[in-house]
Amino acid sequence: MVKRATTPYHGRMNNENTIPITKVLVTGMSGLIGGVVGRELSQRGYEVSALNRQDVSGYPTTRASITDADAIRPAFEGIDCVVHMAAYLGPADASQLSVNIEGTYNVYEAAKYAGVKRFVFGSSGATQMRYEVDEPFLSMIEARYDDIPEPTPRVYHSSPPRPGNMYGVAKLAGEAMGRYYSETHGMSVICIRLGRVTAENEPDSPRNAAVYLSHRDAAQIVWRCVEAPTDVRYGIVYGVSNNRTRFRDLEHTTKLIGYVPQDGWTW
Amino acid sequence: MVKRATTPYHGRMNNENTIPITKVLVTGMSGLIGGVVGRELSQRGYEVSALNRQDVSGYPTTRASITDADAIRPAFEGIDCVVHMAAYLGPADASQLSVNIEGTYNVYEAAKYAGVKRFVFGSSGATQMRYEVDEPFLSMIEARYDDIPEPTPRVYHSSPPRPGNMYGVAKLAGEAMGRYYSETHGMSVICIRLGRVTAENEPDSPRNAAVYLSHRDAAQIVWRCVEAPTDVRYGIVYGVSNNRTRFRDLEHTTKLIGYVPQDGWTW
Repeated sequence: MVKRATTPYHGRMNNENTIPITKVLVTGMSGLIGGVVGRELSQRGYEVSALNRQDVSGYPTTRASITDADAIRPAFEGIDCVVHMAAYLGPADASQLSVNIEGTYNVYEAAKYAGVKRFVFGSSGATQMRYEVDEPFLSMIEARYDDIPEPTPRVYHSSPPRPGNMYGVAKLAGEAMGRYYSETHGMSVICIRLGRVTAENEPDSPRNAAVYLSHRDAAQIVWRCVEAPTDVRYGIVYGVSNNRTRFRDLEHTTKLIGYVPQDGWTW
Repeated sequence: MVKRATTPYHGRMNNENTIPITKVLVTGMSGLIGGVVGRELSQRGYEVSALNRQDVSGYPTTRASITDADAIRPAFEGIDCVVHMAAYLGPADASQLSVNIEGTYNVYEAAKYAGVKRFVFGSSGATQMRYEVDEPFLSMIEARYDDIPEPTPRVYHSSPPRPGNMYGVAKLAGEAMGRYYSETHGMSVICIRLGRVTAENEPDSPRNAAVYLSHRDAAQIVWRCVEAPTDVRYGIVYGVSNNRTRFRDLEHTTKLIGYVPQDGWTW
């Protein structure tokens, strides 16, 4: 059951506190999350284009793999903001590192050369997934609601990394790159550790209900990043819906970018 | 001037609290640090072999690049402990990511398949180098001794990563891999954020005097990692000498592995 919250849905913010952004490039827009957030940004009035291996219907697309540093460069001309969602989700192998680390490096480099002002990086909860094997999180994610202590324990973005797989390692590398580009090249970078988004918009297990991220909340958290205040130079935020067994912190997310989930799942 | 400390130099530890280690594989042993630590381990009685692109005189060498996952595998047969010092120190480019990230992944994978018990990873202070652009560290590293507050401020391994370059990003990725292999494959992993080691065994600037690591201290910190207690399953430690303007924390290093620097530089 998705609980509908009463959070008001703000109109697009455009004032002296936000970076002037008109043109947004979305990588991986043929993917589930890339599609959801790309369409949302388009509806909010941004000029959205795609960097994608295949054409994205309805959007100007530069067809290239992010592993090809030269081929992707033209996509970044005139771009104010990059939303980098392209990722290789397969098993750990050379392809995964090539796409998720070298590809991400190529995207940051191209953004830097194009003078991109803000970079939104699609990171993942896989960066800290191993907390889930320890209590109290283990019981929580098995939806033993009676066992949830008050106050509810959380995993914080600032806790030590505990990647659950090489995908999580690659995302940590992408976050670290973001810090580097933010500090040395003046590009504002916000990394979202995204929860589980499914085509059906429903979680398929107790564990995935704990980290569920609805389409609507995924769309919101990305535009919140795009429209976050200019003085947000670097940040890592968790992005999940307000699920009953949620163990990922959202206080920092709300504080940094104003995100308040509208949805939440109770398994 | 190198200050000689009075720290006793312990003999090789071998008791019920340490992992039984006989055979140690050193990667990058033709390099400065790899050579220093490889010779030290050999003198302490370990059977040291090398994984290196070129032959390492006096040591059995498997000649291969760590970027070649298949070619390096034979080097790991029967190995108890890996000391991974091979790294690409050139400018940020595809080679750097390939060697420092994919190569490191290949080394971890080969170690996992060979049943290696302990993995010592040569990380770098580049992972947090951007702290140096802020006070109070900025003044300290310029050797303005009068400006050093008491107690002396430190950068801790647990502070958020602030890589100064893509080399630092790659080392953060290698540390995160270590955590992953430690938690999911039972391999003990200790990452050393090494300071500046020079062929002359002297720093060449005030900044490098702050992060100076003598040959003797480099040798010590690595054998301390090899001989650290069995229950050390994962750790990140700073490795520098006890320099006058030292801002990198060593308390955690001493606590975790017993390292106490014998040297220290005053510029």
